[in-house]
Amino acid sequence: MYILKLGGGAGITQEAFSNFAADLATLEGQFVVVHGANAEFSRLSEALGQPPRMITNEKGRVSRYTDRETMETMLMAYCGKVNKLLVATMQHAGVNAVGLSGIDGHLATGKRKPVIRGTEEGKTKVLRDDHAGSLKAIDTALVTLLTGAGYLPVLTPPALDLDEGTPINVDGDRLSLELALALGAEGLIFFADTPGLLRDRDDESSLIEEIDASDPDKAMEAAQGRMKVKVETAVKAVEQGIGRVIFADGRTSRPVSDALAGRGTVVRNVHHS
Amino acid sequence: MYILKLGGGAGITQEAFSNFAADLATLEGQFVVVHGANAEFSRLSEALGQPPRMITNEKGRVSRYTDRETMETMLMAYCGKVNKLLVATMQHAGVNAVGLSGIDGHLATGKRKPVIRGTEEGKTKVLRDDHAGSLKAIDTALVTLLTGAGYLPVLTPPALDLDEGTPINVDGDRLSLELALALGAEGLIFFADTPGLLRDRDDESSLIEEIDASDPDKAMEAAQGRMKVKVETAVKAVEQGIGRVIFADGRTSRPVSDALAGRGTVVRNVHHS
Repeated sequence: MYILKLGGGAGITQEAFSNFAADLATLEGQFVVVHGANAEFSRLSEALGQPPRMITNEKGRVSRYTDRETMETMLMAYCGKVNKLLVATMQHAGVNAVGLSGIDGHLATGKRKPVIRGTEEGKTKVLRDDHAGSLKAIDTALVTLLTGAGYLPVLTPPALDLDEGTPINVDGDRLSLELALALGAEGLIFFADTPGLLRDRDDESSLIEEIDASDPDKAMEAAQGRMKVKVETAVKAVEQGIGRVIFADGRTSRPVSDALAGRGTVVRNVHHS
Repeated sequence: MYILKLGGGAGITQEAFSNFAADLATLEGQFVVVHGANAEFSRLSEALGQPPRMITNEKGRVSRYTDRETMETMLMAYCGKVNKLLVATMQHAGVNAVGLSGIDGHLATGKRKPVIRGTEEGKTKVLRDDHAGSLKAIDTALVTLLTGAGYLPVLTPPALDLDEGTPINVDGDRLSLELALALGAEGLIFFADTPGLLRDRDDESSLIEEIDASDPDKAMEAAQGRMKVKVETAVKAVEQGIGRVIFADGRTSRPVSDALAGRGTVVRNVHHS
């Protein structure tokens, strides 16, 4: 099984959705799609007059404050518009997709952070209505039931705090990774609007074709800036048993086939294979 | 199996959702929930500055014009906010719910009306972007797979035009009825913010307790005004094999148990039972 993560940025367009759908319709094997919707979330927040409130914690990390209203906007963008339009596109291409969030079948559960302390525009704040949370468990039963019956699950955040009955905002990349680990996936492919990881982010020809997960120090040397987190995540994923992690181009006409053929940045145990 | 239709009006509140969830957690048997989200759809349309455009057709029937933008708003209200908050409430109560639209697993498919002719504010219009449609087919495979594995499907409009790959706006009551027929359901229960069908709509004590579907003329005599369509639908459903149709109160603390115990207006073949 392969987990395919589609970024939620503006670079992954309706045309890209159509390419993914047409490509998947030609492929054998089991897949689970995970998608984001960050660009749509921002657009909708703005249209509803809900500017993002950014909170800086003690460690200097900045995150978006997700109060109840913001969470409802997230549900609308992620689970409403983007998820269902992607599923409709898949269905039209002949792929029997089923749209899900982490809430459905308590697929992805975690714990809401009840109190957030930090600063907002320089002022100290203690916030109790935040819907950010940490992912604790993946229940694979629903996904396994669906893939076993020939369906393509199309999954999106949020996850669920089961104790409180409230949705929680979790990172889509993290959700993909945990799902891949829980399912013992053969591979995990992150699609974005670049050819893969680049040595020089402004030069698409500077693609890093392979990273050896069995040599983490050397792997981390290849990574720069924001790339470090991605490489670290991928190396850990391979260490934990995922065959390969691929950073692939989501803009080609056959994005899944291309990635499966090894295009993009492939992270794997080179020495063990 | 029972199909439970929860109205999308303002009368069905978060408290009502919690009551449904707690009640379902105590009940044996297979259920499918279908819900609307009309009040939320109106609220969101207004917040986004999308006033409803009403079109009157040749027969004088008024309907809401659902252009692409309006359909996206519908997806956000129905499949995003209301569906996922209801599923979260169910999960919290211990009911293993899975939220679905008619798009998922091409559960409910139909045909978009490509051209709408009518009048808007007195002016003749020919509209080609309408996402209203008629329901043509129910594929029960996904629902059957889920109920068989112990999940509670929580279904909401829209449906899908598979040829075009576009969502289509279909009536939630109609979706419930067609699903009940396709599944050969034992019963179909419509929950609203009244005790059932009333002889006098302003008097909650004027409940009609039973309507004999085997005597349609007498049944229709009991119905007045807007009730006529509901009674006609219910009588037809029983004629087509559904054991009973119940119009029940969605505001009680145990709405499903109460309805199953026969509270509300029960439409069935009195002579045959």
